[in-house]
Amino acid sequence: MTNPLTHINAQGEANMVDVTEKAVTQRTATAEGFIYLSQAALDAITNQTNAKGDVLATARIAGIQAAKQTSQLIPLCHPLALSKVAINFDIDADNQRIHITSMCKLAGKTGVEMEALTACSVAALTLFDMCKAVDPLMRIDGIRVLTKQGGKSGDWSTS
Amino acid sequence: MTNPLTHINAQGEANMVDVTEKAVTQRTATAEGFIYLSQAALDAITNQTNAKGDVLATARIAGIQAAKQTSQLIPLCHPLALSKVAINFDIDADNQRIHITSMCKLAGKTGVEMEALTACSVAALTLFDMCKAVDPLMRIDGIRVLTKQGGKSGDWSTS
Amino acid sequence: MTNPLTHINAQGEANMVDVTEKAVTQRTATAEGFIYLSQAALDAITNQTNAKGDVLATARIAGIQAAKQTSQLIPLCHPLALSKVAINFDIDADNQRIHITSMCKLAGKTGVEMEALTACSVAALTLFDMCKAVDPLMRIDGIRVLTKQGGKSGDWSTS
Amino acid sequence: MTNPLTHINAQGEANMVDVTEKAVTQRTATAEGFIYLSQAALDAITNQTNAKGDVLATARIAGIQAAKQTSQLIPLCHPLALSKVAINFDIDADNQRIHITSMCKLAGKTGVEMEALTACSVAALTLFDMCKAVDPLMRIDGIRVLTKQGGKSGDWSTS
Amino acid sequence: MTNPLTHINAQGEANMVDVTEKAVTQRTATAEGFIYLSQAALDAITNQTNAKGDVLATARIAGIQAAKQTSQLIPLCHPLALSKVAINFDIDADNQRIHITSMCKLAGKTGVEMEALTACSVAALTLFDMCKAVDPLMRIDGIRVLTKQGGKSGDWSTS
Amino acid sequence: MTNPLTHINAQGEANMVDVTEKAVTQRTATAEGFIYLSQAALDAITNQTNAKGDVLATARIAGIQAAKQTSQLIPLCHPLALSKVAINFDIDADNQRIHITSMCKLAGKTGVEMEALTACSVAALTLFDMCKAVDPLMRIDGIRVLTKQGGKSGDWSTS
Repeated sequence: MTNPLTHINAQGEANMVDVTEKAVTQRTATAEGFIYLSQAALDAITNQTNAKGDVLATARIAGIQAAKQTSQLIPLCHPLALSKVAINFDIDADNQRIHITSMCKLAGKTGVEMEALTACSVAALTLFDMCKAVDPLMRIDGIRVLTKQGGKSGDWSTS
Repeated sequence: MTNPLTHINAQGEANMVDVTEKAVTQRTATAEGFIYLSQAALDAITNQTNAKGDVLATARIAGIQAAKQTSQLIPLCHPLALSKVAINFDIDADNQRIHITSMCKLAGKTGVEMEALTACSVAALTLFDMCKAVDPLMRIDGIRVLTKQGGKSGDWSTS
Repeated sequence: MTNPLTHINAQGEANMVDVTEKAVTQRTATAEGFIYLSQAALDAITNQTNAKGDVLATARIAGIQAAKQTSQLIPLCHPLALSKVAINFDIDADNQRIHITSMCKLAGKTGVEMEALTACSVAALTLFDMCKAVDPLMRIDGIRVLTKQGGKSGDWSTS
Repeated sequence: MTNPLTHINAQGEANMVDVTEKAVTQRTATAEGFIYLSQAALDAITNQTNAKGDVLATARIAGIQAAKQTSQLIPLCHPLALSKVAINFDIDADNQRIHITSMCKLAGKTGVEMEALTACSVAALTLFDMCKAVDPLMRIDGIRVLTKQGGKSGDWSTS
Repeated sequence: MTNPLTHINAQGEANMVDVTEKAVTQRTATAEGFIYLSQAALDAITNQTNAKGDVLATARIAGIQAAKQTSQLIPLCHPLALSKVAINFDIDADNQRIHITSMCKLAGKTGVEMEALTACSVAALTLFDMCKAVDPLMRIDGIRVLTKQGGKSGDWSTS
Repeated sequence: MTNPLTHINAQGEANMVDVTEKAVTQRTATAEGFIYLSQAALDAITNQTNAKGDVLATARIAGIQAAKQTSQLIPLCHPLALSKVAINFDIDADNQRIHITSMCKLAGKTGVEMEALTACSVAALTLFDMCKAVDPLMRIDGIRVLTKQGGKSGDWSTS
């Protein structure tokens, strides 16, 4: 009986999916996440942003670097030569949160949604680290894949 | 004027907090997070767990390894010699989610909440990776610090 | 005079072999190794295996992760985008040992036997780590390449 | 019931041993291993050694670097600030093998035998890599701990 | 005969200096370096700086991260738990160059000048990377230690 | 308005250049650098070189390893599967310096000059580390790209 979990073989053991014979195609994935924070923390970031503050720049670099390290963090991910990583931040003052979006691209044999999710997660963790003295009660929420293009399964979107 | 963000100096530049003269004390932090997934994905994991499946074991190892790499992922975190990392998973079938909790310990000069949060996040991402063929719509939610002990600021808890 | 050691140039200096112009072909390598351990240690692992223990799962994940890091561990190895890594454990109670086998695959320009050997070695070291409180006298033995397929030199097998 | 495997908790889950309250003491461990190789491979290394060849130097550096990365390779190892790593090679022509010995030191809370074993293993793998074009049938054998000093369990030796 | 190179033993082999018994003291090191670049590249960075550009922020983060990875880059460096890393940039328009300074701190057993030098070097390389499309002829110059405090050899300064 | 800095987007944010659709071509880059050192340090290295000393071998390995890690050190560099890395040292006694040259090759989508520069820089830092007890006043100078071949912009040379 085949296992519905592709990363677990018939014996229930962890299993790196074999992508040797898959075609090289252009693949893109986007992901999103949120960090909810206090008004004081949001103000601190906003003030930095209006000045020349490094808060968002630091989180952006951390997210990009993390995307490139995904296969070292997630045990069954394949090492990939990402051709593009981008991270964006929108300060959503009305909802007292920051909206993080990420995009990863590859000409390769497997999808890049884990790389996009890892970029979002580490960017959020980096924001947490820089704001935790102001607000230790922050919450990272809603990390998910938004869209996926390329590969055998075709294009895909959450909406 | 001092900056409320401890990781940004008065010029708005990223800044690693100087902990050279802080006392070495025992420090503990716990964190939690959730992954929401479809019934099919939850069933697949549960069946593995009842058998000898590696799904939760793989996510646990990934989380432990990530905690040890926190200072390489989060740019302004100090390198720490963690003395203990633990990850726990509770399958919460009623809410169709898995509850992830983590605990990190250190005898050192700075708190370990970022390590606990990183452990939770990477454990959740690893579950996502292993279940994404069954359910590409999963969502990682509610990553936050639960408790913090040791250090100058004393003990602290979310509740 | 050419040097019989391909990784040392005519001046006796360490040398990364130039694979720029080699063809991309499907390559596979398998390797094996053994860990000899006391009856008490073997029993402890076997009992874990019959229950839902993480011993072999942890060693499997460690071996897979190590295969992906081979070029960071072995100085003259090329970075490779492995398309498949698998590790298997057979408990050989008669000989009081565990037989570890590994398999690596790549569509690329160079062979993957070092990746397979690294996977076996680190899986064995991980078993050692987890059992050393029960048996500090364990011994890792017989790490070698079993088969190699693909590439200019053609298929190859130890037997 | 406690589990005889210290790295597995009572639920059978992978477990990083808590060393927070252990005393900082001077700890030393030595390990050894062998690589068996053909006369042609042994001659190639010996000729390098008599000249200014980098073969053993490369394997020595690889082993030292690997010792420092042990906690990233072995999932349940603690990160340690090693204070000394040394690797030695003896060419044992009579037995057509190279004898590798390693020594690691630490002033810390946990033993360093895994670091010494990792140093030996990666030094051996590096020799394998550099000689595999001459002899693909090499075998790494006899990797084990020789001595251990410091810590609660006192001094210990294989002989 | 002792070897004047502390990192090479009497046999001429690479050697990690044994610091096990050295005292833990507060240690600081500062280093500097320069990148010379065309007027066009300097203008591009300056314009970024006056706006909210990420050029210097990215190089600062890269330098901080590199300081923490020094022992993985420089084979005979000890792993250290740095307690502070800072990087500063001065745009020296008169000399058409950027002046990079770094500072590292540690309460530990060995000096941190290699960490400060690595931080400067990688910050300079990152500036090079971001400006190379405008000016491929840039030059990194004058990387050296400025001051060193703490440890047995006492305080030290280049001037 | 497009930004002259390719790694910064129109909003002034750090930006990984999208190379997804670039052609795979053979690319080569060479770089150079110098380390100036005292007569005593130069003599120590020269004596090692005439004997079987590991000084230059250690620096060569460090440079090769660093080239392979470039995308982890330089935030906006793409991960690349380098097909060749070489490092050369010339002892230039007349000018009391060592001349370091590096060469990197790739069949890929983006140039490898950052990899060549990183190799030179880390090789120089490693020489610094091994000689700093003899001469703490060393200086790393003149790190620059010498030649670049392959890719859309054609061949290029400093002279």
